[in-house]
Formats: sequence, structure tokens, C-alpha cells
Amino acid sequence: MEIFDISVNINENMPVYKNREEKKPKIILDKEYKKDNINESSIHMNLHTGTHLDAPFHTFEKGKTIEELDISQLITPCTVLDLTDISEKITSADLEKFDINKGDFILLKTQNSYDTEFNFEFVFLEKSGAEYLANKKIKGVGIDSLGIERSQENHPTHSILMGEDIYILEGLNLKYVDAGKYKLIALPIKIDGVDGAPVRAVLVNEDSSQ
Amino acid sequence: MEIFDISVNINENMPVYKNREEKKPKIILDKEYKKDNINESSIHMNLHTGTHLDAPFHTFEKGKTIEELDISQLITPCTVLDLTDISEKITSADLEKFDINKGDFILLKTQNSYDTEFNFEFVFLEKSGAEYLANKKIKGVGIDSLGIERSQENHPTHSILMGEDIYILEGLNLKYVDAGKYKLIALPIKIDGVDGAPVRAVLVNEDSSQ
Repeated sequence: MEIFDISVNINENMPVYKNREEKKPKIILDKEYKKDNINESSIHMNLHTGTHLDAPFHTFEKGKTIEELDISQLITPCTVLDLTDISEKITSADLEKFDINKGDFILLKTQNSYDTEFNFEFVFLEKSGAEYLANKKIKGVGIDSLGIERSQENHPTHSILMGEDIYILEGLNLKYVDAGKYKLIALPIKIDGVDGAPVRAVLVNEDSSQ
Repeated sequence: MEIFDISVNINENMPVYKNREEKKPKIILDKEYKKDNINESSIHMNLHTGTHLDAPFHTFEKGKTIEELDISQLITPCTVLDLTDISEKITSADLEKFDINKGDFILLKTQNSYDTEFNFEFVFLEKSGAEYLANKKIKGVGIDSLGIERSQENHPTHSILMGEDIYILEGLNLKYVDAGKYKLIALPIKIDGVDGAPVRAVLVNEDSSQ
């Protein structure tokens, strides 16, 4: 069994959406070994920090929240698509080249995986691409940027996908994985009533019996 | 594939260690649909809240931190032991009754799984039980209380286990799983340099080909 960690590191200097100060996590060492004979920390973080899962409640006034999502959808075969030749946005035309089927979980590997800081012009899934994937009735989609869309009024990519109960993973690091088929494990921490949650996402290469 | 969620829910009213106010998570809705056309939250939480993995840095001044741990140890066959007949602490004598072998990942199901609030007298793994498991060279151990030990000076249970690189999961909910063999998935979110991290832990019942 070969495991690829596709999660980004969470720390106070990590890239955050549009470099907004309030989105930077704060990590506090509340107890320190020298004084307390133990180290114990707390964190303050936006729930869309680093590698995370969006819940429909992020986009819809009465959408499902993180703890209501079906985790069996997040232990699943998946396919990494190589879209690193695209420089602006992923459209339906870009996706038609691939064999995408009902129930697939698709990870979009783009140039974003090579960014070392927040890129205001990150490659995103354009509305037509989201419609294409929704029509295919995929199970979920992930991308290697902190958002799956930008610069689209009323965030149609989120609405189209979530309207079809398609799970959205953001903030993946796909730099070290090639296109191909894997098993994805991407379980969100179980926070009640919220719009998103951090995930430790991995890809597993199992033997052919799987 | 049958999946058992063995994680507790994280919310502002959940049980926290010794009911300490500063250990209760705070969840803040920073952006609200009615005003911002989106819901977006942040959390402030102790990193040993709910279901979590301890890192050696919790116990040792220069121990390994969460992001340095080997996640391949946390996607693994495991065994749930039924210890619900014990009312105070788990000793070596209690563990000798079971067939425990090198490389096993052991989950200790106790009366704690039935507590609905923090129990100051929770069942814990006593020093002799930790020594027994360390001598067996197990891979990891999990328990259904917020701590794997209490009322032992200098926390020997943590030191003995971590001294042998045995992973420690705390805050599991084993109420709904029977004793037996499963596959465990328990990956900590990837926070740099810290002593613990929340985990969405599940048990998977796979077919015999696994």
C-alpha cells in the first residue's frame, strides 16, 4: 500500500485566501513543557483553511452542514486528471477530453499545485465545467486551490455542484501525484453545524484486488 | 464496505477535559448568508478536543510533532477489545486475557463510551497496562475517554507508550461498535509543530479479500 499525502501544511505563514489577515490561523502554546511538564496547544482557524471540505451550508442558506455529510462518499475510488496545461479556467471543453462517469470522484490537478504563495489568478473550475460534471452525476470534485472558483458572480460553480450533492474538496496539494486512479480518503473533522472543515486527505495506491 | 464513525461531535457544549472552560471550543459564524450571501465560520479549539491523536511533543520536551508522524500507521488493521466490565483502570492483568501481538493497533472499549458528560473517574490505561502493550510492541492504542490516563504522577502511561513510538488516540466513541477486527482510518489534520490534532476516526468492515 502506497500512501500519498495530498494535504497542505497548516501554520501561521501558510497561504490563505486573498492573503486576508483574518484568515491566517493562530496557533497558541497554552501549556509549555518547561513550566507545565507538558506541551498543549490550541488553534484559531477559519474552517476553509488549507485542505478542507465545503458543506452545502457554505453556499445555501439552509444547506447541509459538515456533520450531516455522508462520509462513505469520502472513502472512494478517485481519478486525478492532469490539467496543468490550462492557465486560466477549466471549462466543459477541457473536461470533455476525459472519460468521466457517473459516481466518479474527480481531482483536478492544475498549475495551482506549483504556487508557493496565494495566487490571485489561480486556475478555477468555470461554470460550464461545473455544469458538465453535474450532468455526469459525479460524486465529488477536488482542486488544488483554496477555492474551486473565483470572479464569478453568485458563485455558480459552488451552487451547481452542491445543488447536485457533489462534494467539493479545496486546498489539495497534487504536486507529487501523477494523473491516474487511486483510492481517496478525505474525512472532515466532525464539527456540528458548520459550513466547512479541515481534512487530512490522502491518496492510496492499493493492489489490484481492491 | 461498512463504515462506523467512531468520532465524537465537536460543538460548544461537548464534554471537555475536567469541564475546564478554556477547553471548550468556540465556533464563530464570521460571514452570514443573509448579509454576505455565504456562510463561513472559524473555530477556536484546544488541539486535544474530542477525537484526537497525541504527538510525542505533548509528553516530551523534544518529541515529534503531529506533521512528523507516519500516517501509514493510521490506516491499519485494528482490534477493538471489550473492557466494559472494568470500572476503574486497565492493568496488565486485564490485557493478558487477549491475544495481542506485535504491530497490532488496539482500541480499548470501556464504560467511558456510555458517559454523556465528562466523568472525573473515567476508566484509564494504568501504567502496568501501558508497559504490557509496550512490551508487545503494538503500533498504536486508542481509548474512549479524553485522556488515556489520569491520577498518575508524571503521566507514565503516555511516556511508556510514546517512548516506544506507539500512537495514542483519545476521545473515541466506541459505543456503537462491537469487539472484533476492523480497518482503522484515523488521520490527524496536518498542523505544523504541535502536540496533538483532531482526527475524523472511522472503522471499516471490509470483505475478506482485504
